[in-house]
Amino acid sequence: MTDVAAGAVPLVDVWRGDLLESRHLGHAVICDARGVVEAWGNPGAVIYPRSSCKMIQALPLLESGAGAALPARRLALACASHNGAAIHVDAVRDWLADMGLGEEDLRCGTQVPDDPEEHKRLLCTGDAACQVHNNCSGKHSGFLMLNKHLGGGPEYTEPGHPVQKAVKAAFEEVTGEDSPGYGIDGCSAPNFATSVGGLARAMARFATANGSDARSRAMVALREGMVAHPEMVAGEGRACTELMRVMDGVAVKTGAEAVFVAILPKQGLGVALKVLDGGTRASEAAITALLSRLGALDPAHPMAMKRLGDPLRSRRGILAGAVKLAPGFC
Amino acid sequence: MTDVAAGAVPLVDVWRGDLLESRHLGHAVICDARGVVEAWGNPGAVIYPRSSCKMIQALPLLESGAGAALPARRLALACASHNGAAIHVDAVRDWLADMGLGEEDLRCGTQVPDDPEEHKRLLCTGDAACQVHNNCSGKHSGFLMLNKHLGGGPEYTEPGHPVQKAVKAAFEEVTGEDSPGYGIDGCSAPNFATSVGGLARAMARFATANGSDARSRAMVALREGMVAHPEMVAGEGRACTELMRVMDGVAVKTGAEAVFVAILPKQGLGVALKVLDGGTRASEAAITALLSRLGALDPAHPMAMKRLGDPLRSRRGILAGAVKLAPGFC
Repeated sequence: MTDVAAGAVPLVDVWRGDLLESRHLGHAVICDARGVVEAWGNPGAVIYPRSSCKMIQALPLLESGAGAALPARRLALACASHNGAAIHVDAVRDWLADMGLGEEDLRCGTQVPDDPEEHKRLLCTGDAACQVHNNCSGKHSGFLMLNKHLGGGPEYTEPGHPVQKAVKAAFEEVTGEDSPGYGIDGCSAPNFATSVGGLARAMARFATANGSDARSRAMVALREGMVAHPEMVAGEGRACTELMRVMDGVAVKTGAEAVFVAILPKQGLGVALKVLDGGTRASEAAITALLSRLGALDPAHPMAMKRLGDPLRSRRGILAGAVKLAPGFC
Repeated sequence: MTDVAAGAVPLVDVWRGDLLESRHLGHAVICDARGVVEAWGNPGAVIYPRSSCKMIQALPLLESGAGAALPARRLALACASHNGAAIHVDAVRDWLADMGLGEEDLRCGTQVPDDPEEHKRLLCTGDAACQVHNNCSGKHSGFLMLNKHLGGGPEYTEPGHPVQKAVKAAFEEVTGEDSPGYGIDGCSAPNFATSVGGLARAMARFATANGSDARSRAMVALREGMVAHPEMVAGEGRACTELMRVMDGVAVKTGAEAVFVAILPKQGLGVALKVLDGGTRASEAAITALLSRLGALDPAHPMAMKRLGDPLRSRRGILAGAVKLAPGFC
């Protein structure tokens, strides 16, 4: 394993007029159940998966039995980086209430919601954003449910807490690597590092899971929950939601600093990518290209073109440029 | 001259925990009146300066005599990428009215303002954003004033229009290069390409201008207008405004896709930088480092630390990481 910069290659270019204006480097890996099938950049580059690994962080919730009865919609929410729209906020509040818990039990911190309607409502009524609006509040609800089962203390985001120990164990098992370290994520939970190849391998395990054991059943339930409720995983206008809606059975998930993963059950493949500079426009364009390459996404669909294909325009609609794949990628 | 990717070097790193999470490559050049003093990356890399060159785009307005009587505040506005706050919107409306023109004469397009108060006002009253809110509406007011003087038609953003021909001529003269092409900017005006070194050379000319001829007087007036009214150049919370406020006589200006320039009259130096991936957090950190290196900015000042030095924290305030200079830069 090497640092994230080692071996990064051009993935996505931004053109304006006849000139290259900006370029994004990075790493992208496609794995099947046996290992790396295809890679651009360095599969050994160490990354923080950030929110792209929420389906891994949710494994102990299901494998422990704590979340065995959870409906698919809540499983999707446990894997979500949601917009804090009313549907997300209401669903988290309901989940917390069903556990006899409340907003004050969360440890994700307050976040102003990205959802335009909810944001407007808060601004114009003077209501305050709260921890339920945090894009990770579904994941944290899952942590709280696991914690009730494990009987741990209230500070469930501390790296030594039983919840996080369980997450780390699952994470290392499915990536097939000892994690070289952790960082504190925006929601204050530890985020375990792995290689891009390790993350793609984990996604291939989700893709090829067949329900033969507790882990495999958990993987199937989580990927199917995401696919069944794309609106819960992100929100209106967001890449995860819009891309899952126009694919058949493929789960995708973004992470901060331009990580993106995909789980392709029909192909038995997992994908992981990281854009070196953290630019989300590039991770969205790159995952769109890879999903198209693998036959999971129609590159001419408006939801694909929105990320890769539509021209860049000025504020008066004049054609200005385009986001393109860099030479040599995909 | 080469494309923007050729010779880019690491400028800014983002760390989380003990691991490098993201890296930004790019080019940075310091020039004096004679040429390049110091450079990282490739001074010959071709870039679009975007809004960083607004003081160049304003030169014909003053050199023609059309804007000879403009107060410093309007000169700052002509160089601005403003937030669309009330002070900016009111100032643009007044300027247009003084010319017997209105919002409908602008060709910059409508933009939802970044200023939180004005954004909230529009959302909660139902008032619509308009072209005056566009961050470039001050530059366009300057274009309109020049156009009145030149007697051109209303489509002053067209590349063949007398206003844009005058801008291109000034641009090529002060960069010392034939522009290799233009792109359409977000505000629909042409944006002429140059090398990073050419842009730094132009800034050095602004820095060393002494009022000896019409161009030199225009350069002094524009840099002094920016320095006298930093609040007009960007807005509250923005890097240009906050950095100019805590420096002595230094003008700085950001541009889309992570360009940043500085004009340092006391040192007789000009600076230009471009982050390859277009990441603004990196261009702000890099210009902060260069201004500190050149003795213009106290790196321990909170407004400097905000861009380079303050830790990254989770939403609950837990220490998570840091933005740092990449090895070898600055």
